[in-house]
Amino acid sequence: MERLLDTELKKLKEKLLVMGGSVESQLEDVLRALTKRDSDLAIRVVENDLRINKFDVEIDETCLKLLALHQPTAGDLRFITTAMKISTELERMSDLAENIAERAIELNKEPQLKPYIDIPRMADWTIRMVKECLDAFVERDPALARKVCRDDDFIDDLTEQLFRELVSFMLEDPRTITRAIRLTFIGKYYERIADHATNIAELVVYMVEGKIIRHMSPERSEEEGGAAAVPS
Amino acid sequence: MERLLDTELKKLKEKLLVMGGSVESQLEDVLRALTKRDSDLAIRVVENDLRINKFDVEIDETCLKLLALHQPTAGDLRFITTAMKISTELERMSDLAENIAERAIELNKEPQLKPYIDIPRMADWTIRMVKECLDAFVERDPALARKVCRDDDFIDDLTEQLFRELVSFMLEDPRTITRAIRLTFIGKYYERIADHATNIAELVVYMVEGKIIRHMSPERSEEEGGAAAVPS
Repeated sequence: MERLLDTELKKLKEKLLVMGGSVESQLEDVLRALTKRDSDLAIRVVENDLRINKFDVEIDETCLKLLALHQPTAGDLRFITTAMKISTELERMSDLAENIAERAIELNKEPQLKPYIDIPRMADWTIRMVKECLDAFVERDPALARKVCRDDDFIDDLTEQLFRELVSFMLEDPRTITRAIRLTFIGKYYERIADHATNIAELVVYMVEGKIIRHMSPERSEEEGGAAAVPS
Repeated sequence: MERLLDTELKKLKEKLLVMGGSVESQLEDVLRALTKRDSDLAIRVVENDLRINKFDVEIDETCLKLLALHQPTAGDLRFITTAMKISTELERMSDLAENIAERAIELNKEPQLKPYIDIPRMADWTIRMVKECLDAFVERDPALARKVCRDDDFIDDLTEQLFRELVSFMLEDPRTITRAIRLTFIGKYYERIADHATNIAELVVYMVEGKIIRHMSPERSEEEGGAAAVPS
């Protein structure tokens, strides 16, 4: 017979996955809002953030209830505290999608500065990292989680490349400065979403192996001390 | 007679406060590194981040142990899960101090673009928010915590003001672009440190009153969907 706690943990995992799916949709929508210059869609992304926040609150409450009622130990305990933290990371990704949507709305009011090439690549790469870190969580797969951590380096490289290009635009024609700064911020937002995916991946390794791999890599970007340098 | 758990919780609180004090020192040092153009000090800030990371790992381990061994409920349970989350917020503040240090090292290699006026104000205000959110935690003072949340608006205003000024520098003289972007980033880093202080303040209100006030304010900056707009 299945323990009551197992049933509850299964429900918790499902809720986290639904939340993760909603965050992925937000990321897909905001990329479309930017590349198709669809400000109505960007507004919907901003509005949808409230739904994601509600998920975060509910998951937090569920975790506290499980801790209080079932007094779990060992693996179950670690699963629940990991779920609480993953939910916070997902909620912050959604906040960043909202930030991208706000910049997109501003950008859509002006002529497009340049064809968006790097940003869709960053977005696709980031969305894949989000999918994979959640798969790693569900499958308890530390190898996949480690792959996500490694993939973060590529996003850092892309961010730096984007900066260089945008600075050259600004130098050539100062009228591009405002738009170029907005795009620079969007690059930074994607970099940070990728960092949150990496945080989740590190939490998964810890949950499965009990090994702390965060704070270990010298190559982490934003908020991990290795933020892509501003090109000179 | 004091319960064993009470003794352990007191130790946990003390450790969090030591960690908080170390983060405050990092923030004070990095401001000095920038304003006094002291790159050696900036390098020490980067190195010290490792110490803060170690605190985070230790606090996390302590909390898991307390949850497993004492199976706390109600207020004790909420205190411990709050401590875990506060530690994560503090650790990310320290990462941002490191990011500021990196930009300072880059800036110190070039002539100073302008007298730093807004940035020290942002830094002082932010450091006060960090102190006060930790005081609110120790004193279980939701009124002080709510003040910290309100103070965050001022940082957002300062960030926007700084942007406007830096964009006007860039427009006037494109040779300032690289330095101005570095300073823009530093403004953003302070904005995010203030957001982390606000996150802690919100956690304190939740711990004391059981009320969730995060996700409620429309005025949150970065990662809360209300990031200061890039001035046009």
